Amino acid sequence: MRLSRYFIPVLKETPSDAQIVSHRLMLRAGLIRQEAAGIYAWLPLGHRVLRKIEQIVREEQDRAGAAEMLMPTLQPADLWRESGRYDDYGQEMLRIVDRHKRDLLYGPTNEEMITEIFRSYCRSYKDVPKLLYHIQWKFRDEIRPRFGVMRGREFLMKDAYSFDLDEEAARKSYNRMFVAYLNTFARLGLKSVPMRADTGPIGGDLSHEFIILADTGESEVFCHADLLEMGAPGLDVNFDGDLQPLVDQRTALYAATEEMHDADRFVAEVPEHKRVSARGIEVGHIFNFGTKYSEPMNASVAHPDGKERPVHMGSYGVGVSRLMGGIIEASHDDNGIIWPESVAPYGVGIINMRPGDAACDAACETAYQALSKAGKEPLLDDTEDRAGAKFARMDLIGLPYQIVIGPRGLKEGKIELKVRRSGEKHDLSLDDAIDRLAEGKFANG
Amino acid sequence: MRLSRYFIPVLKETPSDAQIVSHRLMLRAGLIRQEAAGIYAWLPLGHRVLRKIEQIVREEQDRAGAAEMLMPTLQPADLWRESGRYDDYGQEMLRIVDRHKRDLLYGPTNEEMITEIFRSYCRSYKDVPKLLYHIQWKFRDEIRPRFGVMRGREFLMKDAYSFDLDEEAARKSYNRMFVAYLNTFARLGLKSVPMRADTGPIGGDLSHEFIILADTGESEVFCHADLLEMGAPGLDVNFDGDLQPLVDQRTALYAATEEMHDADRFVAEVPEHKRVSARGIEVGHIFNFGTKYSEPMNASVAHPDGKERPVHMGSYGVGVSRLMGGIIEASHDDNGIIWPESVAPYGVGIINMRPGDAACDAACETAYQALSKAGKEPLLDDTEDRAGAKFARMDLIGLPYQIVIGPRGLKEGKIELKVRRSGEKHDLSLDDAIDRLAEGKFANG
Repeated sequence: MRLSRYFIPVLKETPSDAQIVSHRLMLRAGLIRQEAAGIYAWLPLGHRVLRKIEQIVREEQDRAGAAEMLMPTLQPADLWRESGRYDDYGQEMLRIVDRHKRDLLYGPTNEEMITEIFRSYCRSYKDVPKLLYHIQWKFRDEIRPRFGVMRGREFLMKDAYSFDLDEEAARKSYNRMFVAYLNTFARLGLKSVPMRADTGPIGGDLSHEFIILADTGESEVFCHADLLEMGAPGLDVNFDGDLQPLVDQRTALYAATEEMHDADRFVAEVPEHKRVSARGIEVGHIFNFGTKYSEPMNASVAHPDGKERPVHMGSYGVGVSRLMGGIIEASHDDNGIIWPESVAPYGVGIINMRPGDAACDAACETAYQALSKAGKEPLLDDTEDRAGAKFARMDLIGLPYQIVIGPRGLKEGKIELKVRRSGEKHDLSLDDAIDRLAEGKFANG
Repeated sequence: MRLSRYFIPVLKETPSDAQIVSHRLMLRAGLIRQEAAGIYAWLPLGHRVLRKIEQIVREEQDRAGAAEMLMPTLQPADLWRESGRYDDYGQEMLRIVDRHKRDLLYGPTNEEMITEIFRSYCRSYKDVPKLLYHIQWKFRDEIRPRFGVMRGREFLMKDAYSFDLDEEAARKSYNRMFVAYLNTFARLGLKSVPMRADTGPIGGDLSHEFIILADTGESEVFCHADLLEMGAPGLDVNFDGDLQPLVDQRTALYAATEEMHDADRFVAEVPEHKRVSARGIEVGHIFNFGTKYSEPMNASVAHPDGKERPVHMGSYGVGVSRLMGGIIEASHDDNGIIWPESVAPYGVGIINMRPGDAACDAACETAYQALSKAGKEPLLDDTEDRAGAKFARMDLIGLPYQIVIGPRGLKEGKIELKVRRSGEKHDLSLDDAIDRLAEGKFANG
C-alpha cells in the first residue's frame, strides 16, 4: 500500500477522554473512530488488524474441528422467552421493535438461536457431536462503555457451541476449545492463563476464563507463577486424541479470578515466592452448562437405547475486537504500538525520505515490489511530510520493521533497517535488507 | 471436510412458503435457515459461499484502488438529522432507543457516517481523492420480506464511497467502480448489464444499476442485445488510466430499468431483432450525487486557490448476500444448484459408496488427501446413508465435480467422475481423476 493513496489519520494530540493506553494509541494511530458511546468505526489500518486477529481465531477453531457458520445480529425475542432469559437479561440487552410491532433484540450471545437451529435438524445420537461457531457482531448496552474497544457496546466475538450426547462427551468438546484457545492466544503473541471462573448469566458448573496479564487489567487475578511459564500445546496437537492431560496440567495449579479467589487456598497451595497477584484482561471464556438450554428448549436426541434425552451443551467465546486492545496493552512503548508479526497491519514500513528524488524513488519502488512479492505486505510512505513526522508516524503505527531510504545513504549504497521492538538499527545495502527481511532473518522478539 | 463431522441439513421436502427457485434451493440444500421474517442464519455450506462471494467483491474493490474499513451496524440518529434523511427514510429504517434514551438506528446505508469520518480528518485538496469501502450487515425493515435472501431485512452489502475535489475527478471515481463491478460479476459467473437508473432516496443525477437477467427477476428491463455479448473489461485493466472509453462502450447502447424506460427511444434506437425485454435482478447500484451530503454536513476541503468548497461524492453498492440468490437463479437445474467454480463451497465431492470397506476407504482417503493438497477443497461423503440419498444430496448442493468410489469399480481399477453442470461422466483410474482435477482439465462451462 502507498500511503499517499491510503487513509491513516493519525492524531497529533492525545485524546483527553481515553483512560488507558490501548484506547489512546488506537485513536492516535488512526485505527478507530468513535461514532457513539462504545460504538466504533474501524479505519483501514484498524480493520486490517481486526481481520488478522479474526483469521487466527478462525484457523484455530477449524483446526479443533469446529465448523463455521453465521447467525444474524438480530434475534426474535420469543427465542429468549423460551429459555427464560428475555426477562432476566436486564438493560444490557438492546431491545428493538420492528414496523410490525414484533419484538427483536440485538444478540448479546447466541445460546438460544443455536439451540433452535440444532433442534430443528438433529434428532438422533448419530447427529452428535456437533461443534459450531460463528464470528459476528454483538451488542451489549453497557451502562458505562469505556476503555475503547475493551468494553464497547458493539463488539466482534467468536462464539462456539457444542452439542453432545452426555456429560463425558461434552467434556471432550470443552477440552477441544480449552486447547484451541491456548494456541490461539499464543499465535496472537499473548501469554494467557486459564482460570476457574464464575459462570454468570450463561450458567453451568464448569467454566474457565482465559486471562492475559496487563497493568491496566479490569480485574485482579491470582495464580501460580509456573502457569505463566507454560507454553501453548502447539499446533500439532491431535484434537481427536485425549486432551485431558493437557488440560489437567494447566488446571492443577492455582489460578482464579477475583470472584472465585479463595485466599486461604491460595496461601496453602502456592509457595510464597510463586504467588502472583496481578491485573488481568479476560480475552476468552468457556462454559460447560449441561442441559440448561436444551431442557427448556426441547433440544433432545434419541439415544441408542431409543430414549430421548436433552443434549449436553457448552459455549465458548473469544472477544475478537477486544483482543486488539489487549494486544496493544501487552505490546507498546512510549512511541506507540509494537504489533506482533502475526497481526501487524503491514509487515514492513518503507520511508522515502525524499519523494521526487529519482534515486530514492527507484530504490523505494524496488523495495516495495520485492517485499510485496515476498508476501511481506509493505506500506510505503511516499508522502511529502517532513522527516520527523514520518518517523513518528511509523513508530506510532508499530509495523515490525522499517526501511529508511534517503539520498545520503543511497550515495554510499546503504539504507537503514530498524527493528521496531528493539529499536536496533542496521546499515545495509538495499538488496541485503530485502533478502534478510524476505527470509525472516531479523529477531522481532 | 468430512461430511460425517459436518452440518449440512438438507431437506427432503420443498418448503411451501418459498416462491422462487433460489429460495427453495437454499433452504433445501441446507444453506440458510430463517430465524425471523427476512432474517437468516447462514449454515456452514451457505456461509462458505457467502465468504467466497465477499472475497471476490473485496479483491476487485482493492484492485480498483479502494481501501477497506468497517463501520458499525448501529448509527446515532443525529447524523441522519444533519443530512435531513432521518425523517425522510420512513418505516424501512429500524429505529432503536438505547438504555439512556438515545436514538440509534440500524444502518441501511452509510453516506452520513462516512461523510462524518471524512470531514473529521480531511481538510485539504491534498487529502483527496479518497475511495473507501466496507462490507457490513445492513438492515431495511421491508414491509413484506420475500424471495429469501433476495429481499431480506438483514443483509450483507459492500458499499464504497468516493470523495473528490470536483465533478470531473468524481467521474473518474465513478468509472473505477463501474469497471470494477463488471469484473466482479464476471468472476462470479454472472453476465451483468449496466442500466441507467433512478437515483431514489440516495439522490444525485448519475446512476447505474447492474442487472443480471433471470426469469424470476423482480423488475422488467429493456436493453440492446449486444450488451449481453460484451465481455467484462478484464482484470488487467489499468485503473489509473482513462476508463471513460470502457464506460462509454457500455453505455452507448440502450439499456434501462422499468422506471427509466422510454418506449419510444427503445424503438427508435434499437433495431427490432436486437430488442431485449426481460426480467432482471439488481446486484449492484452506483451513484454520483455531487454535494448532496457534503453540503449540509460541511464536508469541505480547501482548494489550491485557498477557498473551501464541498467535496463531490459518490456511493457504490453490491448486494453480497443477495448475490447468492442471483447466482442460483442463473445457475441451477431440476436436481439442484450448479455453483460456478469461483464460489463453490467445496471444489469436489467424493462419494464413498461403502464406508467400512477397506478398499473404498483407502481410495477415498487417497483422493481426499491429494485433492486437499492440490487446493481443491474436497468434501468427502463418508456417511452411512444409502446410495440414492448420497447422489441426490451431492447434486442438490451443486459442487462442480463429483468422484464416486465404489467396490465394483475399484476391482477394475476405476472410479466415476461426474461434471455437475453437463452431467457428463468419465470412468477413470483414481490417479487420472485426481491429476486431471488438480490440473483443471475438465470443462465446467
